Amino acid sequence: MVVVIQCKDQIGLVATISGVMAQQNINIISMREHVDTACNSFFTRLELEPPAAIAAAINSTAGNPGSGTQASGDDAATASILAYAQTLHSQLEKVLPAGAFIHVTTQPEKKLVVLVTKEYHCLGDILLRNHFKTLGATVEAVIGNHAILGDICKRFDVPFHLVSHEKKEKEVFEAELQSVIGQHTFDYLVLAKFMRILSPEFVASHPMRIINIHHSFLPAFIGASPYRQAYERGVKLIGATAHFVTNDLDEGPIITQQIIPVNHTFSATDMVKAGKEIETSVLAKALQLVIDDRVFVYQNRTVVFDH
Amino acid sequence: MVVVIQCKDQIGLVATISGVMAQQNINIISMREHVDTACNSFFTRLELEPPAAIAAAINSTAGNPGSGTQASGDDAATASILAYAQTLHSQLEKVLPAGAFIHVTTQPEKKLVVLVTKEYHCLGDILLRNHFKTLGATVEAVIGNHAILGDICKRFDVPFHLVSHEKKEKEVFEAELQSVIGQHTFDYLVLAKFMRILSPEFVASHPMRIINIHHSFLPAFIGASPYRQAYERGVKLIGATAHFVTNDLDEGPIITQQIIPVNHTFSATDMVKAGKEIETSVLAKALQLVIDDRVFVYQNRTVVFDH
Amino acid sequence: MVVVIQCKDQIGLVATISGVMAQQNINIISMREHVDTACNSFFTRLELEPPAAIAAAINSTAGNPGSGTQASGDDAATASILAYAQTLHSQLEKVLPAGAFIHVTTQPEKKLVVLVTKEYHCLGDILLRNHFKTLGATVEAVIGNHAILGDICKRFDVPFHLVSHEKKEKEVFEAELQSVIGQHTFDYLVLAKFMRILSPEFVASHPMRIINIHHSFLPAFIGASPYRQAYERGVKLIGATAHFVTNDLDEGPIITQQIIPVNHTFSATDMVKAGKEIETSVLAKALQLVIDDRVFVYQNRTVVFDH
Amino acid sequence: MVVVIQCKDQIGLVATISGVMAQQNINIISMREHVDTACNSFFTRLELEPPAAIAAAINSTAGNPGSGTQASGDDAATASILAYAQTLHSQLEKVLPAGAFIHVTTQPEKKLVVLVTKEYHCLGDILLRNHFKTLGATVEAVIGNHAILGDICKRFDVPFHLVSHEKKEKEVFEAELQSVIGQHTFDYLVLAKFMRILSPEFVASHPMRIINIHHSFLPAFIGASPYRQAYERGVKLIGATAHFVTNDLDEGPIITQQIIPVNHTFSATDMVKAGKEIETSVLAKALQLVIDDRVFVYQNRTVVFDH
Repeated sequence: MVVVIQCKDQIGLVATISGVMAQQNINIISMREHVDTACNSFFTRLELEPPAAIAAAINSTAGNPGSGTQASGDDAATASILAYAQTLHSQLEKVLPAGAFIHVTTQPEKKLVVLVTKEYHCLGDILLRNHFKTLGATVEAVIGNHAILGDICKRFDVPFHLVSHEKKEKEVFEAELQSVIGQHTFDYLVLAKFMRILSPEFVASHPMRIINIHHSFLPAFIGASPYRQAYERGVKLIGATAHFVTNDLDEGPIITQQIIPVNHTFSATDMVKAGKEIETSVLAKALQLVIDDRVFVYQNRTVVFDH
Repeated sequence: MVVVIQCKDQIGLVATISGVMAQQNINIISMREHVDTACNSFFTRLELEPPAAIAAAINSTAGNPGSGTQASGDDAATASILAYAQTLHSQLEKVLPAGAFIHVTTQPEKKLVVLVTKEYHCLGDILLRNHFKTLGATVEAVIGNHAILGDICKRFDVPFHLVSHEKKEKEVFEAELQSVIGQHTFDYLVLAKFMRILSPEFVASHPMRIINIHHSFLPAFIGASPYRQAYERGVKLIGATAHFVTNDLDEGPIITQQIIPVNHTFSATDMVKAGKEIETSVLAKALQLVIDDRVFVYQNRTVVFDH
Repeated sequence: MVVVIQCKDQIGLVATISGVMAQQNINIISMREHVDTACNSFFTRLELEPPAAIAAAINSTAGNPGSGTQASGDDAATASILAYAQTLHSQLEKVLPAGAFIHVTTQPEKKLVVLVTKEYHCLGDILLRNHFKTLGATVEAVIGNHAILGDICKRFDVPFHLVSHEKKEKEVFEAELQSVIGQHTFDYLVLAKFMRILSPEFVASHPMRIINIHHSFLPAFIGASPYRQAYERGVKLIGATAHFVTNDLDEGPIITQQIIPVNHTFSATDMVKAGKEIETSVLAKALQLVIDDRVFVYQNRTVVFDH
Repeated sequence: MVVVIQCKDQIGLVATISGVMAQQNINIISMREHVDTACNSFFTRLELEPPAAIAAAINSTAGNPGSGTQASGDDAATASILAYAQTLHSQLEKVLPAGAFIHVTTQPEKKLVVLVTKEYHCLGDILLRNHFKTLGATVEAVIGNHAILGDICKRFDVPFHLVSHEKKEKEVFEAELQSVIGQHTFDYLVLAKFMRILSPEFVASHPMRIINIHHSFLPAFIGASPYRQAYERGVKLIGATAHFVTNDLDEGPIITQQIIPVNHTFSATDMVKAGKEIETSVLAKALQLVIDDRVFVYQNRTVVFDH
């Protein structure tokens, strides 16, 4: 069981929060706390050992990752878990500053909608994990502005919607996107190499819920053709960056970044190819962090309580 | 066009080899040469710019990686490429020491048979690349000693053979394996988390053609449960190793290795999960190196002319 | 101000500890907590914002790292800091389980004695940082079993003691070592490429206070000539490991590890040379972690609350 | 013995070069060749096994790295080596295209002048290696625009010149620099955290002989306070870049780059501190590459034939 809290900082917050846990006879197995003193912001993430009855209920509802088997839990177990989480949430709400963000998670239950264009590598990786239940989330649907990736979605029994951008005003295209997105419930929109720039209006309608993979080590090589730019500059490392999308292109809060070495034997095309490996890896890592409730966003930056 | 040569070392080999290229009006775009003076062994790999006619033929027969489209070349182009490669091979054979290994490649054409047990991560990655034609090789078939991964193969239209080891002598099991393998032509057998130990007889029948992924940073944690061993030892990095299989378990020539950091927050189970990411990545890298003719084996070690 | 606590786990510990801080009007800027449920052990590290008066006193006594200037604080400031730390310590002691390890640090004040043989790279790095006051600790003395590194110590005005092992029983050699060590107060003995194996008796007299740099990625290549072993095995990564010394050679709790890639162009000698770079880097990192009170030891393993 | 050649590409160059070696009975132990087809440039680096007599002479003149002992060779040996190298050079010159750059190295003999400001970390590392003869080059002098690093130079018996920039026109300051530099012979000027921007005129007077360490992962965070910029942007990796200096600030050909992970617990000051570790490491690596004749420069980029 994981609890995450983000609020205005004040002396005594850790005592207040851990006091609630102690009162409930909950052991804190792992805790991370961070204060940004410059802006007086408090962040914490606790991994908790719930009471035996709740732990048993959680186990009974968990699927078998990697094997594709379904969860065997029943509705009663689920209900008791939810009730327990809700109680804890209420108790924390009572003692924390007004406006505190509190989230109590008993098991992964997040839902994703994935947007793609033509490149398969990030989507394929996500679909594989989704299929074998190791993603920790469910891919509700995939939306492509080209048709080509429909086939792989079909092979994995995941709904694919084609929403073409061609011969359309951006407004019309995005209205169609929103309409399709609106058919699904989701926690995050994942831009898995979606090569259209979204309007501020679109972004504003899903604040801090759109995750993008940018194919460079931001802030280097913002914008189009970063590998071509990297090749021209003669860099010795290329990177990829997963970030939340904001109105400023490629300027949103960074979740995670990785690099790989390159050298003079890499053409721009070789860099594109090598880059796909880390794009896949960085997006997978970012999704894992977000799905595990390890990422907090504030003031265009993130707090990431990684392992 | 790539040429690789491995032979006994002697003064003048580079001059001899490059002389053949100069005579044929072939430009050497990239060359790597290495001599192991301790055992008098010579290794080289050349990337060549073939004459315009051959270059055109190669282009016409190449598929479109990533898009799943088929190659559009015709049989005449293929024939002319093969004839050219054969001529080059003969000319090199004439001037190189007896017993030299010479390989002239005009385009990726390698074939793989993949052996698996229950874990999907390495196989899934290979099937994705195979499906989208970015593997640089073709997966001819998958053989599992459990049935569970048959489904994913079917989704990708790749033949799957179930060869169960249960209630069988190893001899019988391996005879059945060999029989199924014998139905396919292949360059490499890839053990993609195949959890049975193969007998010396089996290994000897496919010398330096069996590639394994071992889930540790060899030579640390040889044998079973390396992540459990790593956890017990309290290491701060865990690794994975791709290697050719020889008679000595986990002792064959190493192709490539990678590591990731771990810490006290990782249980043995967490290490298993984190390790799958590099197992997938290391095996993919090793296959790419082998498929691109970048790996030479000798005396239980490898020369790898990577990018 | 940093507080670290290690004790038997029980429900409510975080509430107890943070309660003391709240009561004292101390803000917790950063907190890490970890429970090893398998052995019921609790670990925590808190970075605290002390009251303004104490913060001012701490600032007034801090030197200017990197510039070699001396601290300008006076004795009164130092006394008030110590008194404050002692009070906090007492308050924590009252409420924590019996036998709890509690350490309150107001500023780096650790002392080191460094043991060396002939190789300069680790020692040189430590002496540089010590000289420019960026080590966060003070090198009280260097002891060498060869004379050669005396010169570099002299250049940095650090006492050097020659304690030769030649033509001596190990007991005699170690008695002489202990005698010289006894002339200095220190928190840690640092084996900076000290190439003698210490007896269990010696080790037992400084429990968990001896830090070694081993020139391999433990547990691979235990013992002598690890680079030669690595070369023979044909590995593609070599490593270095900083660990506490216990009676079992190269088997003590690991603090940190790093690796670098190698390939067929590296002779065993080249590996030795490349390895020195990470030996230096790993030992520096381990010392920084230990000096910053980020490392806990238990059951032959470590909890490391790194940045 | 190492030979490096850079010239206009044409078919047959490898044959021509290796033909000279074969004729001289020289074995090529390791060879790297690269052609940039876009600009028709040819680069190669050969490690050669010289005839026994020359090999013996080379050995007799080599010092003992790491121990500070002096080379024991005599003038006759040195003369015979130089004569041999000159002969090889002439033979290559005869057969290579006009204007080819040809360099024959028999042993490390490069000389450096190091420019610094106030930070010690890069200079200290270079002085240590220089002192223990593991740099592969000689530090002829250090020039500082502040006095503070004079002391460490004195401790290592390396000449230090103070050339203050204060209350001077840039022209005057640089004229003084040039005057001091002119007192020394050198192959490279190393800017080891030299915090003044050099004029185009100064740079032009030492073309491709000035090496700088920039404290960011170029091209991200060009200019001043890159760590502050990195902190503001919330990046998850910070880097350092060693490059040749050209007229465009921070835009010269990149030699090598490294990164380290950072996170929300790093203040801008922590990033500065962490960054010093890779600045030191990257500059050391770049110097090693340049000293070992592994770096070629052309068109604002480099070819680096690393291990």
